[in-house]
Amino acid sequence: MLKLYYAADTCSLATHIVLEEVGANYATARIDFVTQQQRSPEYLAINPKGRVPALVTDRGILTETPAMLAFVAQSFPAAGLAPFDDAFAFAEVQAFNSYLCSTLHVAHSHRMRGHRWADDEAAIAAMQRKVPQSVTACYELIERDMLKGPWVMGERYTICDPYLFTLAQWLEQDGVDPYRIPRVVDHRRRVSERAAVRKAIAEELA
Amino acid sequence: MLKLYYAADTCSLATHIVLEEVGANYATARIDFVTQQQRSPEYLAINPKGRVPALVTDRGILTETPAMLAFVAQSFPAAGLAPFDDAFAFAEVQAFNSYLCSTLHVAHSHRMRGHRWADDEAAIAAMQRKVPQSVTACYELIERDMLKGPWVMGERYTICDPYLFTLAQWLEQDGVDPYRIPRVVDHRRRVSERAAVRKAIAEELA
Repeated sequence: MLKLYYAADTCSLATHIVLEEVGANYATARIDFVTQQQRSPEYLAINPKGRVPALVTDRGILTETPAMLAFVAQSFPAAGLAPFDDAFAFAEVQAFNSYLCSTLHVAHSHRMRGHRWADDEAAIAAMQRKVPQSVTACYELIERDMLKGPWVMGERYTICDPYLFTLAQWLEQDGVDPYRIPRVVDHRRRVSERAAVRKAIAEELA
Repeated sequence: MLKLYYAADTCSLATHIVLEEVGANYATARIDFVTQQQRSPEYLAINPKGRVPALVTDRGILTETPAMLAFVAQSFPAAGLAPFDDAFAFAEVQAFNSYLCSTLHVAHSHRMRGHRWADDEAAIAAMQRKVPQSVTACYELIERDMLKGPWVMGERYTICDPYLFTLAQWLEQDGVDPYRIPRVVDHRRRVSERAAVRKAIAEELA
């Protein structure tokens, strides 16, 4: 059975949603960031990166959201969440998710996790000040050039949708004006109405 | 025919190498960062992100190194550069490449591209000061937990190898002590000896 290590209000929600979407038989384990449980020896034995998410499978442990999303989709092909039989279409899915992890999520992380990239408090504060600008730039690119509509990849709901939805939970806190990105906000609302999404969120809030 | 937009001394080298490895029929176009050609209207029409690499295919344009590497590997299955028929093994490949793009490359980018995340010069200097520590932490994790040996994924050379090799070109400039990561440095040397790698580098230096 699959087991997802997650923390509340983090990108692990994307994988949680996809596990629900495909109807997987899975368990979850919550990691408490308040008590720094992600740095505990027990958790570092599972994920030496000290981050969430991590997915325990019968073959070993996987990390990194884009890889985990594709793994779940490929393991449950009937759900049709990624076009594995079409190299170009699959690459478009991967490119979108890669942009989220390497650019949008990274821009966002400069608000709360600046200590990863600088030690002094003034520099960390300077990073926080730029987050509204850098995160807005990412969402404007998604709004204009990447989100095909109604779903990220067009007519078919894929693993891109819960990932964008998950990161878009934070856009107001990041200082992004939602009125500048109406298509992203509308996408977020439509994803939020899916049964799998409601179930995953309810479990994380319980 | 495939056409790769690249810039010298950037992560686009990874895709360039893989195009050589698979024996693809492809053209290249060099983008000059010195003259900010990546921000020109002509290039933004190809890649609105204003970055390299970008790969023009007969189906459309792809960006994001992890997606492009998987696309080339999947398009040339005889080269055997990624295990598409094994969801777990493929996810391990994707997880490794996702870590490179979202964590190692991002840590490195705080040396030269700090303006992406802060405006004031003192903050940008503070980011630069932390690069040796943050990039070293990434390489130590790779050395200890991720690089199986002899290749990243073990016995089989995959799309992970040219990507790690490409980023590892920069580790001394990032202030990493190569003696702390002997397996990474040995891997870099062995990748550098491959004919495809020599050919791609020679073309970029020409």
